[in-house]
Amino acid sequence: METATAIQTVPSYIRDAWWTPADGAAATEVRDASTGEVIARVSAEGLDLAAAVDHGRSVGQTELGRLTTHGRALLLRDLAQYLNGRSEELYAVSAQTGATRIDSMVDIDGGIGVLFTLSSKGRRELPNANVIVEGPVEVLSKDGSFIGEHIHTRIPGVAVQVNAFNFPVWGMLEKFAPAFIAGVPTIVKPATPTGFLAEAAVRAMVESGILPDGSLQLVSGPARDLLDRLDYRDMVSFTGSASTATLLRNHPNVAHGGVRFMAETDSLNAAILGPDAVPGTPEFDAFIKSAATEMTVKAGQKCTAIRRVIVPNPVRHAVIDAIGARLRERVVIGDPRADGVTMGALASLEQLADVRAAVRAMLAAGGELAYGTLDAPAVTRADGEVSGVEQGAFMSPVLLNWPDSGSPAVHTLEAFGPVAGVLGYDMHDGDASEAVRLAALGAGSLVATVCTNDPEVARQLVTGIAAHHGRILLLNREDARSSTGHGAPVPHLVHGGPGRAGGGEELGGIRSVWHHMQRTALQGSPNMLTALTGEWHTGADRVIAGDPEFGGVPGAVHPFRKSLAELRIGDAFASGLRQVELADISAFAEGTGDLFYAHTDADAAARNPFFPGIVAHGYLLVSWAAGLFVEPAPGPVLANYGLESLRFLTPVAAGDSIRVTLTAKRITPRVTDDYGEVCWDAVLNNQDGATVATYDVLTLVEKVDTLYA
Amino acid sequence: METATAIQTVPSYIRDAWWTPADGAAATEVRDASTGEVIARVSAEGLDLAAAVDHGRSVGQTELGRLTTHGRALLLRDLAQYLNGRSEELYAVSAQTGATRIDSMVDIDGGIGVLFTLSSKGRRELPNANVIVEGPVEVLSKDGSFIGEHIHTRIPGVAVQVNAFNFPVWGMLEKFAPAFIAGVPTIVKPATPTGFLAEAAVRAMVESGILPDGSLQLVSGPARDLLDRLDYRDMVSFTGSASTATLLRNHPNVAHGGVRFMAETDSLNAAILGPDAVPGTPEFDAFIKSAATEMTVKAGQKCTAIRRVIVPNPVRHAVIDAIGARLRERVVIGDPRADGVTMGALASLEQLADVRAAVRAMLAAGGELAYGTLDAPAVTRADGEVSGVEQGAFMSPVLLNWPDSGSPAVHTLEAFGPVAGVLGYDMHDGDASEAVRLAALGAGSLVATVCTNDPEVARQLVTGIAAHHGRILLLNREDARSSTGHGAPVPHLVHGGPGRAGGGEELGGIRSVWHHMQRTALQGSPNMLTALTGEWHTGADRVIAGDPEFGGVPGAVHPFRKSLAELRIGDAFASGLRQVELADISAFAEGTGDLFYAHTDADAAARNPFFPGIVAHGYLLVSWAAGLFVEPAPGPVLANYGLESLRFLTPVAAGDSIRVTLTAKRITPRVTDDYGEVCWDAVLNNQDGATVATYDVLTLVEKVDTLYA
Repeated sequence: METATAIQTVPSYIRDAWWTPADGAAATEVRDASTGEVIARVSAEGLDLAAAVDHGRSVGQTELGRLTTHGRALLLRDLAQYLNGRSEELYAVSAQTGATRIDSMVDIDGGIGVLFTLSSKGRRELPNANVIVEGPVEVLSKDGSFIGEHIHTRIPGVAVQVNAFNFPVWGMLEKFAPAFIAGVPTIVKPATPTGFLAEAAVRAMVESGILPDGSLQLVSGPARDLLDRLDYRDMVSFTGSASTATLLRNHPNVAHGGVRFMAETDSLNAAILGPDAVPGTPEFDAFIKSAATEMTVKAGQKCTAIRRVIVPNPVRHAVIDAIGARLRERVVIGDPRADGVTMGALASLEQLADVRAAVRAMLAAGGELAYGTLDAPAVTRADGEVSGVEQGAFMSPVLLNWPDSGSPAVHTLEAFGPVAGVLGYDMHDGDASEAVRLAALGAGSLVATVCTNDPEVARQLVTGIAAHHGRILLLNREDARSSTGHGAPVPHLVHGGPGRAGGGEELGGIRSVWHHMQRTALQGSPNMLTALTGEWHTGADRVIAGDPEFGGVPGAVHPFRKSLAELRIGDAFASGLRQVELADISAFAEGTGDLFYAHTDADAAARNPFFPGIVAHGYLLVSWAAGLFVEPAPGPVLANYGLESLRFLTPVAAGDSIRVTLTAKRITPRVTDDYGEVCWDAVLNNQDGATVATYDVLTLVEKVDTLYA
Repeated sequence: METATAIQTVPSYIRDAWWTPADGAAATEVRDASTGEVIARVSAEGLDLAAAVDHGRSVGQTELGRLTTHGRALLLRDLAQYLNGRSEELYAVSAQTGATRIDSMVDIDGGIGVLFTLSSKGRRELPNANVIVEGPVEVLSKDGSFIGEHIHTRIPGVAVQVNAFNFPVWGMLEKFAPAFIAGVPTIVKPATPTGFLAEAAVRAMVESGILPDGSLQLVSGPARDLLDRLDYRDMVSFTGSASTATLLRNHPNVAHGGVRFMAETDSLNAAILGPDAVPGTPEFDAFIKSAATEMTVKAGQKCTAIRRVIVPNPVRHAVIDAIGARLRERVVIGDPRADGVTMGALASLEQLADVRAAVRAMLAAGGELAYGTLDAPAVTRADGEVSGVEQGAFMSPVLLNWPDSGSPAVHTLEAFGPVAGVLGYDMHDGDASEAVRLAALGAGSLVATVCTNDPEVARQLVTGIAAHHGRILLLNREDARSSTGHGAPVPHLVHGGPGRAGGGEELGGIRSVWHHMQRTALQGSPNMLTALTGEWHTGADRVIAGDPEFGGVPGAVHPFRKSLAELRIGDAFASGLRQVELADISAFAEGTGDLFYAHTDADAAARNPFFPGIVAHGYLLVSWAAGLFVEPAPGPVLANYGLESLRFLTPVAAGDSIRVTLTAKRITPRVTDDYGEVCWDAVLNNQDGATVATYDVLTLVEKVDTLYA
């Protein structure tokens, strides 16, 4: 205690400034996980949480709202690049949490990776806007004057993170990135034992100068009344224990006040070995490797770690032996700063005590110690010396054998450390339902591995357990080397799970952005929905160039002659009619080689239920349509890079005519290029006005007409 | 009480049989809303709720699981048609709840309409399967051997509905339909005052003979311990008061046990009149009509009814006068069985007392009575007589004027009856933020109307209030006639809202089916994900017919020669190379009229950043591809009805060659036709193997090869 005054208190970052409590504030001491040395004090005594929430709702919302989705996503990329340049500093801090270099990579580089992935997805998959349309337009009246669709707009409050101690950087960045893209300010509340690493990461982010004011705040210390400050405008994303989740869920502002609450809690994740994956198969080897890795990475302190190893009874002892052999061979426990160490310390002495107590309870409930010990393990110190003296939060990996697979203890008790249990199942005439039943006894998990090379076994197991899991990894010889692993959530896919896993959902690519937005059904006329969303809707006003017979206004400029600086949604072009002759169809058939009978054989065509006789090729129609709408001379439209949602609705026979109407529907300027994407609504009609085909034409258009101007 | 023994107890439908409590069970009496006559008793004393839940989870899950999405959706259509034939019976029962014929149409026909809409959407928008893929495949390793995507599988429990008294049929069917399509058994718990109508509807559904065993159960009476029987496999959809929602949310099985809980509670919905919509405009008229209608339909007992009429201060009194005039002119209060009655009774005397008490509280808090009375109104009796004597749950519409728009009472108190308040706002230099602020004081609502013909006003109001609302209706001259109205949720769009509105989400087309399913991220090799989902994934095995140089296996049949009976996903065709000459490009340009410079002018083409010089038309490439893969002679492939996700990736210059590989990706047999949809993965490569274009080809294929066999 004599060092207490010399030890720095981890600062908070509130209202765009660093803050530390007054001298003499009650504080918690935090120790290096390996040496036990006091390295920091944690206190938020006197911090004005109400002001922090207000600051996010006012300044943070305003500053983030000055940008659009793509602008914010681009800042995330810049931030990721900046943090990459400072990762060595963060590694050094991370070692104090007991994390090995590989553990730190998962946390630090993994977190930076989320920024990169979501930045890229945000710019590719979202419109460059703050009102985001989701899904198709629904026509709600016969005349098309009343339509509906769904929009997303950001929630009008703050996104509060209450994080677990195990991944202080990744846990923060995976929640921060989608909130930021959505335009929602974040308040981070890290866990006390490793909050100093979160602080180091926030410090780097602030020093980057990239963050808009109010977009990120950090509460380094207890924040028990934070939920008192929140209401239905705000959200809380909690990661941690089920008991704390329940406490927060019962807070009046959540239970009654409408605070959006998302929980991701530890779960008793299973790995199931298929009956085909016997010793000697690539699947068996991959399974053993995965089970051992998940026990030791981060010293098993992962909410996604494998806790229940479910294997066919005939190979149960082979599995236990193989996992044990691998652990014996690979695991070097020690200070992560020492060479050769492959497994670090638990995050704190309190964690160590908790895990040992849980293992003792399991032993009392029927688990048998198959590998490891609860005694102090041999530990490699930072200076390379090996000592067996208890110092730091070190623990041996522990593998338990459960003779009774149905023992409630293995399906309900969790040791949040390097601990797993092996339980056996039997197949019954090719039926794997016993394995399904055992996996489901976890009562909802974040992730399960299904290891088999037999598609039928995979089908039975996955369809049986999917509804109990947020993620399933199918492990076989084909992906054993390329898999990102059982324990690693990826930003592209959802992370979370039902029941015991908390019932929440994070990540999942752009879904994570939507978690920070309100979905609203919008009903109105095409003109109003066009005005609101910035996307042209069928039936809305437009300015048509082209054939006066089909709406063309004299003097209107062909929209293909307009750069993004001039182009407006609703700018349109209407062609005249062009008649299709039998000779055209025949020539197209010859030229393309598409001699399908509907284009070449009148009798056979007439027997087809969809055609009146010989009809023009669908590809002829869209090719001709291009001929009708294209402006041949160079201009701001650089390329047609694709086409969406083409449907052929009315066949076109010889003698029929077609015309096309093309309307600028959606304009997406790219933040990093001199051009943007323009999506055009294309409609082909015949001489009677019937709709022949509808589709979207995708083009790249210059922002300013320079290349050929 | 002398009639108690003669009055029937509303039966429950449990474990596929009708059930009534033993004689002498404690029961609640239910009265006709207009006459006060006791018409039924309600009791579930002795009902075995645990057995009901077990029955759903076992028999219900099994029987529904024998069908797929499309099969279940088709049963819903049959059920809707059957119920249409019995709607007159239901109308007669509905009149006893105080509902007019129009009110009953909203409830009964509205409910049947949800069945039709979701049946149709289920068959059009979902695959015909029980594992449903959502969203794109994510490639998670460089070599493509490890990929991920999201699947939905039904939750493995029951869907419990706890419904409100106001829409006993619609409220049941709008929740039942998506659960049924998902394959999840339903247990309905109606509200006591109108549960007899829900029972009549369930009776008709059971008598249809259409429902699989265990798919629907009805608990007619209190079911206080129903939540005790549920766990994380189950869901509860609650509609009713915020206080009951809080109670249920605090139940240990929800707060801790993972029961999925969805709430839709009454909210203080706003209608905002824009400053442009002055008296004399079509918007003003539409607004007045909507405000008066929402007060009187269902006697104002709608969670979506307009409670706060927010108008520019200069027209506040004009609005009050106009609404009053319309009510005076149109409203005839009385027994819905009497001719000419336009507004029925509240559902019960208890409701009447509650609503009057709420109005009195509002008057005490500063509201001024602008229209109506709290005294007993003149009431038209079933025999046509008009009486002023208090009998039945009748009440006059009440319009309040709120001189202080910021009065907390108007933003927090709700009278769940024919009651609304008018409050004024001011514009400030074209800024509508005062109206936004007032609307947001509702702290989360189901729906708001924004009535304006000014796109800028609409933009300000909608972007300001969207995140506080589940639905916004934009009312103007263009949709005033065709709009489905402020108060009517439509099955295509989500129903629910944040904060006070409960934070839940129902309907929304296929989203409503997903509410009954678990989203699971699935990771694995292309072969495994193909086996699991029934959709072919790039990289998975296939059987290739065609050119041996590109994988064609001798003897393999062209997949276009296979009917659905023979076709398997992964059946593929690979063409040989075809060289593109400059003459081909020129001929295509001439034939189609597409003379874009990239195809005709070497110098201009070379200046384009994306092209090496003259390149082939994208439409030439897809047309040639069809020529390369099509089987000319008649066969089971009937038509190419469309194309999806076409992207041109590598330009093709004169001298280059292209080839195409086509793979059966997704097969969707139609339940009502002799053919189905086959989606083909198409990839164009050039002579160097580079990918030229990718797209999906959509075809209709016979189930059995009959037409041309």
